[in-house]
Amino acid sequence: MQLLSDLLGRPATAIDTPALVIDLDAMERNLAAMAAFAARHKVRLRPHAKMHKSATLARLQMAHGAVGVCVQKTSEAEALAALGVNNIYISNEVVSPSKLKRVIAVAGELEALGGQLAIAVDSLEGVRALAQAQQGKHSGIHVFIEIDVGQGRCGIAPGAAAVALADEIKRHPGLKFAGLQAYHGRAQHFRSVAERQQGIAQVVGHVQATQVALQAAGHTVPLVTGAGSGTFALETASGVYGELQAGSYLFMDRDYATNEQDPSQPKFEHALFVKSQVMSVCASHAVIDAGHKSHAIDSGLPAVHGLDLTYSNGGDEHGILHGAVLPALGETVWLIPGHCDPTVNLHDHLLGVRGGLQHGVVEQIIAVDARGALT
Amino acid sequence: MQLLSDLLGRPATAIDTPALVIDLDAMERNLAAMAAFAARHKVRLRPHAKMHKSATLARLQMAHGAVGVCVQKTSEAEALAALGVNNIYISNEVVSPSKLKRVIAVAGELEALGGQLAIAVDSLEGVRALAQAQQGKHSGIHVFIEIDVGQGRCGIAPGAAAVALADEIKRHPGLKFAGLQAYHGRAQHFRSVAERQQGIAQVVGHVQATQVALQAAGHTVPLVTGAGSGTFALETASGVYGELQAGSYLFMDRDYATNEQDPSQPKFEHALFVKSQVMSVCASHAVIDAGHKSHAIDSGLPAVHGLDLTYSNGGDEHGILHGAVLPALGETVWLIPGHCDPTVNLHDHLLGVRGGLQHGVVEQIIAVDARGALT
Repeated sequence: MQLLSDLLGRPATAIDTPALVIDLDAMERNLAAMAAFAARHKVRLRPHAKMHKSATLARLQMAHGAVGVCVQKTSEAEALAALGVNNIYISNEVVSPSKLKRVIAVAGELEALGGQLAIAVDSLEGVRALAQAQQGKHSGIHVFIEIDVGQGRCGIAPGAAAVALADEIKRHPGLKFAGLQAYHGRAQHFRSVAERQQGIAQVVGHVQATQVALQAAGHTVPLVTGAGSGTFALETASGVYGELQAGSYLFMDRDYATNEQDPSQPKFEHALFVKSQVMSVCASHAVIDAGHKSHAIDSGLPAVHGLDLTYSNGGDEHGILHGAVLPALGETVWLIPGHCDPTVNLHDHLLGVRGGLQHGVVEQIIAVDARGALT
Repeated sequence: MQLLSDLLGRPATAIDTPALVIDLDAMERNLAAMAAFAARHKVRLRPHAKMHKSATLARLQMAHGAVGVCVQKTSEAEALAALGVNNIYISNEVVSPSKLKRVIAVAGELEALGGQLAIAVDSLEGVRALAQAQQGKHSGIHVFIEIDVGQGRCGIAPGAAAVALADEIKRHPGLKFAGLQAYHGRAQHFRSVAERQQGIAQVVGHVQATQVALQAAGHTVPLVTGAGSGTFALETASGVYGELQAGSYLFMDRDYATNEQDPSQPKFEHALFVKSQVMSVCASHAVIDAGHKSHAIDSGLPAVHGLDLTYSNGGDEHGILHGAVLPALGETVWLIPGHCDPTVNLHDHLLGVRGGLQHGVVEQIIAVDARGALT
């Protein structure tokens, strides 16, 4: 393997391929734009760290005003807590007793760091298993009730169903009802602004119906948390959401760029690239050394950055380029991944380049601390 | 994270989900069936380690008669060589001088271990860059010329084009022409036996045309290497191939099971599974904790093992199950991944279970040594 520490201060041309590279200038502009949006609209920002899985980037976001981060998995929380990230929300259900034991251990670690753990639930059994694991431990857990606002995945039905869950949470002194988890992932990728407006209007209706039912039953709802990089201005404008979970804004997927730009959202730049190299050329096509072990293809194939070439899937380790002017053997080709989150999860490190991809210098090596943290 | 060493000797039920589990009994039957096939047909077996990326499994295959392993990447060769695997063929092109320097270093390591490195080329520039890197080093490199036998990816055109490459290899004393690399990946997945027979007949025709051209120019062709788990009996029957590179046979993808069974090939069993757990249930569906960060979906979604349920993609961390009888909250669900190679690459360890998935015991923890080895 190329010794990564040897790369610091060297030109980006020295990076062996394929490798995942951050354009630090672009990333920092995205970071600042999102922080400014949250500050201007007086909404909390809790970016989803499932995207970058990095304690360094979580701390960077918190230094720029984020209240903490979200994760999806207990092991992601463990990896970030071990590196000092002290405010973590597992925005997902955990039901197995062995994992809940780990959740409670992380809660203790965060408390020791002066922070707090939160988690989502969507079943009575889930609340009881969590309370069972927490019993007798010092750390109190903040619990959000997830409602299904149209995603069709986890979450209880909007409205009255939340009452029984909030009642159950109240019964356990180690648990504290923190509010509602309401995220519609697919709506992030509705292509037109009008479709996204309609989608989030429905989401907000579901949240409000649930708030009404809870309040009628004597519960207060401290916070509504959710929203992603495709729609967060809409959730913010609703006045119902107090916290945004957008994560992709930092790197910006190729897929998000396909959305019609909403003028009420900041415009983010692509900041994450796969550096690849042409390893074979013939009359009809060129082959690069980056296949779907280098970048995830669940949201489609990557785009080729800055060149008029199309990428076809060449399997695990190869990409096939077609176009009128093919690149030469050995040439560098930069790809924009279709979906950042699972792409980052394929890599142990992100190489931060300052001064542009072509002529920049490797300034930072960022570990993907929770890479492969699945459980 | 769950402490993996604590799992040894414990029932498979104790494994936190999602996790990648090998049914060791099934894997060993696959291992023996393939070894018996190669022995019976007097053909060399050099399984592709891009599939398991594990030195333990590479050594197991070599203990059962394999002459060595193939890899696709220099970093895979480095990872396996560091753990004592001494006969490695990089069945892929490497053209960058910095990586070729690493290739030559691995060749020296393998020589010290009493073994040998081989690599593929498909351009004059590639041969010259390899020779340049090798210059003055002790280790000789075995070089295969890759021909494009229908895959439409790397490789020179079949026939006369190989002569110039073989001539160039001959000019460099540190390089030794080892034969032809001829692999048609897509043909592995042609669904009917007749289509695969036709596909491999064309492959064999291309190989023979290239052999004739090389022989007419005074070159001998020591070996033809290639073939995969979908067609290897056909390459073997041709009499032209001396070495098989099949790798997936050990674990068996869900996708390969879709092929019409060729009676001339051993029938392999699924031996690789994702253990997952139901984390949310509603009237219409159940949600499990395994999404496409747990298994690759380039060859389609996973199948649900032993239950009449269909899996829909629920994103990075979730799978959505539909069926007449939904599993209960907390229940274990076993998935058969669509494609083993990129699925294994998502995991740091494979948990080997003896005695069946349901009632078996964790016997072995196998590191995925070359996980994420991309360069």
